[in-house]
Amino acid sequence: MFCNILGKIFTISCFGESHGKVIGCIIGGCPSNIKLSNIDVQIEVNKRKPGISKYITSRKENDKIKILSGIFNKKTTGAPIAIIIKNNDKKSRDYDNIKNIFRPGHADYTYWNKYKNIDFRGGGHSSGRLTANIVSASSITKKYLFKNYGIVFKGYVKQIGKNKILFESWDLINFKLNIANIKKKNIIKKYIKYINKIGDSCGANINLIIKNLPIGIGNPIFDKLNSRISYYLMNINAIKAINIGNGIKGIKYKGSKFNDIITKKGFKTNNSGGILGGISTGQDIKISIFIKPTSSIKIPQKSINKFNKKVKFIIKGRHDTCIGIRILSVAESMLSLVIMDFILNFNSYKI
Amino acid sequence: MFCNILGKIFTISCFGESHGKVIGCIIGGCPSNIKLSNIDVQIEVNKRKPGISKYITSRKENDKIKILSGIFNKKTTGAPIAIIIKNNDKKSRDYDNIKNIFRPGHADYTYWNKYKNIDFRGGGHSSGRLTANIVSASSITKKYLFKNYGIVFKGYVKQIGKNKILFESWDLINFKLNIANIKKKNIIKKYIKYINKIGDSCGANINLIIKNLPIGIGNPIFDKLNSRISYYLMNINAIKAINIGNGIKGIKYKGSKFNDIITKKGFKTNNSGGILGGISTGQDIKISIFIKPTSSIKIPQKSINKFNKKVKFIIKGRHDTCIGIRILSVAESMLSLVIMDFILNFNSYKI
Amino acid sequence: MFCNILGKIFTISCFGESHGKVIGCIIGGCPSNIKLSNIDVQIEVNKRKPGISKYITSRKENDKIKILSGIFNKKTTGAPIAIIIKNNDKKSRDYDNIKNIFRPGHADYTYWNKYKNIDFRGGGHSSGRLTANIVSASSITKKYLFKNYGIVFKGYVKQIGKNKILFESWDLINFKLNIANIKKKNIIKKYIKYINKIGDSCGANINLIIKNLPIGIGNPIFDKLNSRISYYLMNINAIKAINIGNGIKGIKYKGSKFNDIITKKGFKTNNSGGILGGISTGQDIKISIFIKPTSSIKIPQKSINKFNKKVKFIIKGRHDTCIGIRILSVAESMLSLVIMDFILNFNSYKI
Amino acid sequence: MFCNILGKIFTISCFGESHGKVIGCIIGGCPSNIKLSNIDVQIEVNKRKPGISKYITSRKENDKIKILSGIFNKKTTGAPIAIIIKNNDKKSRDYDNIKNIFRPGHADYTYWNKYKNIDFRGGGHSSGRLTANIVSASSITKKYLFKNYGIVFKGYVKQIGKNKILFESWDLINFKLNIANIKKKNIIKKYIKYINKIGDSCGANINLIIKNLPIGIGNPIFDKLNSRISYYLMNINAIKAINIGNGIKGIKYKGSKFNDIITKKGFKTNNSGGILGGISTGQDIKISIFIKPTSSIKIPQKSINKFNKKVKFIIKGRHDTCIGIRILSVAESMLSLVIMDFILNFNSYKI
Repeated sequence: MFCNILGKIFTISCFGESHGKVIGCIIGGCPSNIKLSNIDVQIEVNKRKPGISKYITSRKENDKIKILSGIFNKKTTGAPIAIIIKNNDKKSRDYDNIKNIFRPGHADYTYWNKYKNIDFRGGGHSSGRLTANIVSASSITKKYLFKNYGIVFKGYVKQIGKNKILFESWDLINFKLNIANIKKKNIIKKYIKYINKIGDSCGANINLIIKNLPIGIGNPIFDKLNSRISYYLMNINAIKAINIGNGIKGIKYKGSKFNDIITKKGFKTNNSGGILGGISTGQDIKISIFIKPTSSIKIPQKSINKFNKKVKFIIKGRHDTCIGIRILSVAESMLSLVIMDFILNFNSYKI
Repeated sequence: MFCNILGKIFTISCFGESHGKVIGCIIGGCPSNIKLSNIDVQIEVNKRKPGISKYITSRKENDKIKILSGIFNKKTTGAPIAIIIKNNDKKSRDYDNIKNIFRPGHADYTYWNKYKNIDFRGGGHSSGRLTANIVSASSITKKYLFKNYGIVFKGYVKQIGKNKILFESWDLINFKLNIANIKKKNIIKKYIKYINKIGDSCGANINLIIKNLPIGIGNPIFDKLNSRISYYLMNINAIKAINIGNGIKGIKYKGSKFNDIITKKGFKTNNSGGILGGISTGQDIKISIFIKPTSSIKIPQKSINKFNKKVKFIIKGRHDTCIGIRILSVAESMLSLVIMDFILNFNSYKI
Repeated sequence: MFCNILGKIFTISCFGESHGKVIGCIIGGCPSNIKLSNIDVQIEVNKRKPGISKYITSRKENDKIKILSGIFNKKTTGAPIAIIIKNNDKKSRDYDNIKNIFRPGHADYTYWNKYKNIDFRGGGHSSGRLTANIVSASSITKKYLFKNYGIVFKGYVKQIGKNKILFESWDLINFKLNIANIKKKNIIKKYIKYINKIGDSCGANINLIIKNLPIGIGNPIFDKLNSRISYYLMNINAIKAINIGNGIKGIKYKGSKFNDIITKKGFKTNNSGGILGGISTGQDIKISIFIKPTSSIKIPQKSINKFNKKVKFIIKGRHDTCIGIRILSVAESMLSLVIMDFILNFNSYKI
Repeated sequence: MFCNILGKIFTISCFGESHGKVIGCIIGGCPSNIKLSNIDVQIEVNKRKPGISKYITSRKENDKIKILSGIFNKKTTGAPIAIIIKNNDKKSRDYDNIKNIFRPGHADYTYWNKYKNIDFRGGGHSSGRLTANIVSASSITKKYLFKNYGIVFKGYVKQIGKNKILFESWDLINFKLNIANIKKKNIIKKYIKYINKIGDSCGANINLIIKNLPIGIGNPIFDKLNSRISYYLMNINAIKAINIGNGIKGIKYKGSKFNDIITKKGFKTNNSGGILGGISTGQDIKISIFIKPTSSIKIPQKSINKFNKKVKFIIKGRHDTCIGIRILSVAESMLSLVIMDFILNFNSYKI
């Protein structure tokens, strides 16, 4: 519960600003002897990289990662692993016109009131760019959890704006849109192009799944699996709501329908989302997240500035029309950090 | 991030089982010189007390609280405050027939698999009864936060089963149903009676509001206000989804509509739910929680037992038809614990 | 790092005042299926019980313990274990004459200045009596660590006042004086009687040993084994200095003498006290603690009171002439809490 | 209580290896609007820089620091501050002959057994070089605590090997030897030269003082001021013993002598070292630390290697004859980190 650190046994400490020299993180409590190369980390980071498609921001970061410590003979040593990512493609001048303005939907207003000194360029420390650290750290956790437990983190975009996108198959995932429905591809493309053209933005709903999580992960009363998942995910900027299993729809069910019947072959349904009493059931963990429309839009907006004067302004810079698409990889990565910490805690009780 | 402890500066450590001698908690890091009597605590605990109306469980706990430490001259001393609540009205025999059965929707299955030794009576440690500790601790936090900052925690039931219940006025709150709409009273009463009669249960949706929270409460990147709120609330057993501001509905908005315009007189709208970049804006904090239908139903159910045999059984005991109604006071109390810890952290930076 | 909680995975939360109704603790993160009865706990608590010999305080607490939760079928369930100890033999009137006085050597002055409301009776929350919680919790940790790893915690009093007491044999430990030297018994007895007769008190030096600790326990840079041991032990009131291995004497050594040579059969010496780079070597962990003379003496003393007036007073009540003797069992217990938490963390990395 | 993170409100996360590219740290929870330049940090780091005198290691690090984040308009923003220090003067080849050897006194043996993959060059992650991070972070804490509270951290070397060095005056501090006695300068110089010449090393005893600490800093039962001070200091590699006030000598005192009498003008003595019941008294905080002789010596030594073979070897590289001298600045810095975290916690209770 620290302002820039996540985790209890497996920790990640972050720093950085959107337009600073670098952003980075330190990973503590990491098991030794995990093979880890720059390429392993780079592959993960590339998944959220901006500038890879027309539908997301055209800011072109190479997002070149660099491991500064914790590796010897190409394997982790148990010592902290520091990973940094350079910020090359900074157009700080894009922000000159808004440096004293509180952009609606952004953290400018709250940061200013809290700290009275903020790096306004590209959102500074509050920028979504810092989630690249989460993704870089996940190169370790995803690898470790898959190799040792077969645990996998997956997800797909389920709705963009008002457009529901039926899940058809994991095989059909479109990596530019992260949807699992081939027929909807063009409709969604067109929709995003349209929203982009009018200078606006749109929200999204994403489904996330953790597969092969053993039974027994999580804790009773406090630090429940669902609590910690929510805690980690809610730290991703644009996520405004979290749903476990059939939580939202389920309030309309009767108990006799919502209760998942247990048979000798396992559970018949999964309304619980794979968590009962804060502890994993061995089923798929099912989470749904709701992502607000990107705050940065190109339409002229009104606001006030630090001197409490009315202002009218336009946000320049390059921004995702639907940030939800790109958040998928961050959310999957976050989940891998949660599970890593829980798995290590779970193992504590082995003799 | 401990299995039975919440908080960083202001902590609460809990223990207890539904059918044990007592349940209780220890409050650490409490400011000194807060007036606190048994009655202050009792008043809060009574708000969630079972057995107060026909619509909730008829288990009749006196829920008599006892303060064991931390008070001198009727005021807190800064030393840990231990509060226990006796369990008098235990009908453990009600549980004899199900002691080896994994009740659907309950933690029996996961606890058993994790610990291989569980107190099955009334849910043991996983029982919702333990939330009485949260409510008892909130007698301190609510008092402190209201007296020193005017902060208030409120809420109302917004939907029960499929019945939406429009908010009309705080003055109309019905304390048996926790709805804010006088006209809907009878419809809801009838609905719950019907569900109860058929031995089933129903879910609920609750709106929660924090009023008068200063600007600047929360943290950037991690330990955001919304993260910690979600973490604490998700620890309440039946809560399956959390929504901040217009999070769920908001995915259908365009950015130009979702962004809350800031004027010289304040924000024009509150889609953000009073949180931007993880930090409070000074507006009302708006949270919505989704509560699953009570897992204990009187309808005969199928399951398996610890010996992996099929079983058919009936849950006896007394249970809320709609646990959501009673969770309101717990959720308000949880929010007061979150805010207490954050306010103390916020004050750290005063010189 | 909480004001009333110790531990990271295995936690203990404490409360109580010397003259309150009860003192107690909650143990969190405890493995399930450890056999635990009231008697197991009572045996440990009795080891530090006051009133068992002429050389220590004559306050006669039965120190009757009561387990409130976390046990089912005589074994731990993984749920928090609450243990309370009644305070029966309170002579609060002994404290009436000193209620506004800052007793030298006691926490009265600092508590008053920090909290402005203190329970003065018997030291209130600052009383050494609270260490009974540590001892009660150790009934679990000692058992678990011995059964699963053969780890043992031992110690002996090495010096009382100016009297050095050579260690002769563990078999010769005198449980009233906790010395390991049969010949010195009468000298020490006489010395303590004399100090007691003149109304004064004396300090002590204790050696502590952890046997059979596996190699690899502890952490690099921070949270070193020696760091955490020091952190826990320094929380025992009268301990003012901690020495690991030959730390104090060792500053006079040359490096060539201090360095412990490693051979194929193990280490030749143990100047390091069994810890290198913050991690256990597999040798005995050797710690020495220095305990100040009991602050409560019967000789008339001068001080000031809360109203900043000069006062002359006599401390009544019953107090240990040499608190060091009784601290031994507390220190051993504390070590078992440290090691428990570390062993669980160590196991985290098992797959 | 993390393997690479210190602090509760004000945190420092560290990484690095002696012969890696860089070492560094991230500072979290830092107040905003503290003026901080590269030079401010550099000045502090230079205080512990190797290669500044004949009496300490001749390894010549420029120890050039670089601030990567958290500063805007030359002041802290409240966002995490990352500071790195380059490792330029690496002679990794010096370590080729010992790469499989467990050097006596070093962490090689324990690290290898714990992690099975270690960076042997210059001690890797266990190197004292990492304490440069502590010193760089202290540039912030020392500044903040002095400016806002007048708090100062000081110390002097009190004994080197068997040579006691009387404290004469703070004005006489010799910054090459860190002793406060002008007459002893030549004796000590000669002694160190002699020890260096014979290829050996020597230990030291240091006195540390915190001046102007307000009354009330620290916590009751757990997380006492003395506990946390010990925890932080013991994380500095060569420190093997810690003494608060007259702790060690004090065991020979009677209580009537050890108790510090409180008068209307303050305390008459300071045997407690400025801490009663875990909380500061407003007096000087007095701490004494015992530092073992540098483990790296030039005399040929015997040991075993990773393959359990006997070896004879010589440590090359450049090492401090008496590491104690250079540890002084690290210890002062550590104390400033402890106090920073406590002061922020103390302020939490301001309204």
